[in-house]
Amino acid sequence: MAKEVKSKEENYSVWYNNLVVKADLAENSAVRGCMVIKPYGYAIWEKMQQNLDRMFKETGHVNAYFPLFIPKSFLSKEAEHVDGFAKECAVVTHHRLMANPDGTGVVVDPSAKLEEELIVRPTSETIIWSTYKNWIQSYRDLPLLINQWANVVRWEMRTRLFLRTAEFLWQEGHTAHATKDEAIEETNKIVRLYEKFAKEYLAIPVIVGAKSASERFAGAVDTLCIEAMMQDGKALQAGTSHFLGQNFAKAFDVQFATKEGNLEYVWATSWGVSTRLMGALIMAHSDNNGLVLPPKLAPIQVVMVPIFKTDEENDKIMEKFGQIRDGLQKVGISVKIDNRDNLRSGFKFAEWELKGVPVRIAMGPRDLENGTVEIARRDTLSKEVVSQDNLVEKIEALLNNIQDNIYNKALLFREENTFEIDDYETFKQRIEDGGFFLCHWDGTPETEEKIKNETKATIRCIPFDVEPKEGKCMVTGKPSAQRVIFARSY
Amino acid sequence: MAKEVKSKEENYSVWYNNLVVKADLAENSAVRGCMVIKPYGYAIWEKMQQNLDRMFKETGHVNAYFPLFIPKSFLSKEAEHVDGFAKECAVVTHHRLMANPDGTGVVVDPSAKLEEELIVRPTSETIIWSTYKNWIQSYRDLPLLINQWANVVRWEMRTRLFLRTAEFLWQEGHTAHATKDEAIEETNKIVRLYEKFAKEYLAIPVIVGAKSASERFAGAVDTLCIEAMMQDGKALQAGTSHFLGQNFAKAFDVQFATKEGNLEYVWATSWGVSTRLMGALIMAHSDNNGLVLPPKLAPIQVVMVPIFKTDEENDKIMEKFGQIRDGLQKVGISVKIDNRDNLRSGFKFAEWELKGVPVRIAMGPRDLENGTVEIARRDTLSKEVVSQDNLVEKIEALLNNIQDNIYNKALLFREENTFEIDDYETFKQRIEDGGFFLCHWDGTPETEEKIKNETKATIRCIPFDVEPKEGKCMVTGKPSAQRVIFARSY
Repeated sequence: MAKEVKSKEENYSVWYNNLVVKADLAENSAVRGCMVIKPYGYAIWEKMQQNLDRMFKETGHVNAYFPLFIPKSFLSKEAEHVDGFAKECAVVTHHRLMANPDGTGVVVDPSAKLEEELIVRPTSETIIWSTYKNWIQSYRDLPLLINQWANVVRWEMRTRLFLRTAEFLWQEGHTAHATKDEAIEETNKIVRLYEKFAKEYLAIPVIVGAKSASERFAGAVDTLCIEAMMQDGKALQAGTSHFLGQNFAKAFDVQFATKEGNLEYVWATSWGVSTRLMGALIMAHSDNNGLVLPPKLAPIQVVMVPIFKTDEENDKIMEKFGQIRDGLQKVGISVKIDNRDNLRSGFKFAEWELKGVPVRIAMGPRDLENGTVEIARRDTLSKEVVSQDNLVEKIEALLNNIQDNIYNKALLFREENTFEIDDYETFKQRIEDGGFFLCHWDGTPETEEKIKNETKATIRCIPFDVEPKEGKCMVTGKPSAQRVIFARSY
Repeated sequence: MAKEVKSKEENYSVWYNNLVVKADLAENSAVRGCMVIKPYGYAIWEKMQQNLDRMFKETGHVNAYFPLFIPKSFLSKEAEHVDGFAKECAVVTHHRLMANPDGTGVVVDPSAKLEEELIVRPTSETIIWSTYKNWIQSYRDLPLLINQWANVVRWEMRTRLFLRTAEFLWQEGHTAHATKDEAIEETNKIVRLYEKFAKEYLAIPVIVGAKSASERFAGAVDTLCIEAMMQDGKALQAGTSHFLGQNFAKAFDVQFATKEGNLEYVWATSWGVSTRLMGALIMAHSDNNGLVLPPKLAPIQVVMVPIFKTDEENDKIMEKFGQIRDGLQKVGISVKIDNRDNLRSGFKFAEWELKGVPVRIAMGPRDLENGTVEIARRDTLSKEVVSQDNLVEKIEALLNNIQDNIYNKALLFREENTFEIDDYETFKQRIEDGGFFLCHWDGTPETEEKIKNETKATIRCIPFDVEPKEGKCMVTGKPSAQRVIFARSY
């Protein structure tokens, strides 16, 4: 099974796609650009959701649900916003089918044309701010700290499972504030929440920073982001948090009475992460044997595989496995006993490696005699025979160790592939090998565009956590306030 | 605030709609027939989801996600299915907007017409069975026990918040089995799971039974349901579980190799409950003061309101409230301290009654002196001054008591409004007052249709838990195998 996954060195893109399909995470559907998220993949997404949702609630946010459809006229109310989304959207024009007059199947009923077309939401700023108008009258109604878990549709021409699909699942936060400072604080708070989530759950180190003007969300004053490095050295934007200024409040005329009795426009933020995080998770850690899942997001944290010749041996092992499972489950560890009788243990080992289960426990007749088990860890592929004494404590410690190790490995990889480059010719050569490049840039969209056209590299962000030092733009030699991060990206 | 809710005796329908809006559960959106589920309403839905999801998983089901869109041709593959859904569906015909040539806003780009129209899923049997075709080859791939949490769209002409909306949220289970018996067993298992959920969480007693042929799901061989009685005596179908036979397997050519090596069509079920349950919850228990929430689904189980004149008093009460809150939270009870300084306590009392919070704790200066609190329960509106000793235990017991009491009250109401009627003239009079009517019916769609046309009552179900006794149809006098339940319904 694992052999069907082409090596990532050979063809990273094919390796990724094979892995997603072979590990039962997702597959393409009959609908162009839309994926089916399979149970194993969805179970990982559920764990992401649960943890993010808890983090949002701990920071005072609540969930709500807004309509799937957006009247066409709403989308047009914010000029940059409609420019950004009109070119790739699903448009509902009719509300009924009828029998085909020629007797075959059904056709659109021309008499059921909508007066105004509806857009399947590509993002919900417009429908939400049209609603907020009725919810916000006074400063006492603020802040509104609302999140939505939803599906959205963007009619992408070139799609890839999880990374870029026509329909995807996400959360979108939409907050409303009385002051600019408070909205900016919220924007920052959320990008740091995303950073923490990426670090602690995805085991992915991310760079936090601001997008350049040309990479901003359509309608935003400022877009903050987290950027992760994949194993091919490319960047993946894993989450964004937008300071929207008063743009949407003005587009939908949302004003509030201040304490002093003045009418002012409301300040806004929006922010989101999506099933794209699944792509990041897969590409950041996996190897040629398959997925490598951080224990905190693994649907199965420990798998147990019996090795036996006789039914009697199997019965004894199963009894022992049952005891071990009960002990592990008691401390909240998810366990699967693989007792399928039609598969060899070698096949099972390969399958659970492919699926990225962090810890495998195997037990054979000799282990029964000696009171031992064989423990294999997925991240390093190393194996060890240990005593069954204090097994729960050992497994708990091992899961924590794996979680940390995966993160540290990804961090080391990023550090080894992050470079300061001051010379544009060198940059052009080095960018071919991938990596993050900290370079000086003169701050103009023209230079940014030139670099993009010549190297396919974009500014991933103006990083927050790098000490700003002045220098000269690597292309034009003009003054630069600080280095920014260039990379090719997904 | 509560006064704005018209009494349910005066106008049940207006009372319901006012309540949904005033209690901050949901509101109509700018998009025809689509609602906004507000944070307080969504928090109740989340509690329903969490508990149902756990119950599904405990019975071996897993979650997955399938596309929002269904190619038009898929819908046509099962003849009855397309008849049932084609007349009320949202049709996507284009994938791009463009600037209006006249310079105003955006219009549909005629060059971006889809080759085949896409239907926004009204239910997912077709897209899921087209997928299952690739997942099922052998008996070893069965059963598939998959659930999906999703939004669906049915273009209803007359909509009501939660009860009937163009877009709604639901879960839809879609299972695949090797044998007819196993699929029937699953259909039954799920309808009983729904019954249990309704009883234990919604505190609503339901009648479990089978639909008559004319009320079946489009494409089902048999539809089981749970039917609840609302306070106006009307029935509300709160969940359905369908035995689909081999209809969808045949429509999508899904066959599997049996143990013996034969090829056979797969057997199917599908089942769902939706945000309609919110409507059931509201209409089953609420009163003229507002919502009455069963503690197990209440986002806030206990609210604490201080009664004070001086800041010093308030400080002391707040300190005490903090201690009580900590104690309650420790045992998993959700608590809110209402310390808003711009509202009188009477206003707060009315607001939390409107929102259905099961228990209110009030504390004033005299309580501080005496070591007491005033406890008010929402279901009976009764109040009692009790000692602060063992308050956590008292509140825990009270919440359980309220949960039971709400259920018993609804059960009593249903029993008092369920009648055996053998005479059609009496039936025609009595149906005007609402209630469930156990009557003999000759089993023909013609008689069913006649009763519906003359009385607006339909057969809600052929009940499972009523001892079948033979009799004569109240309309035609022909033989009847057992009484069935007639009622007017939502």
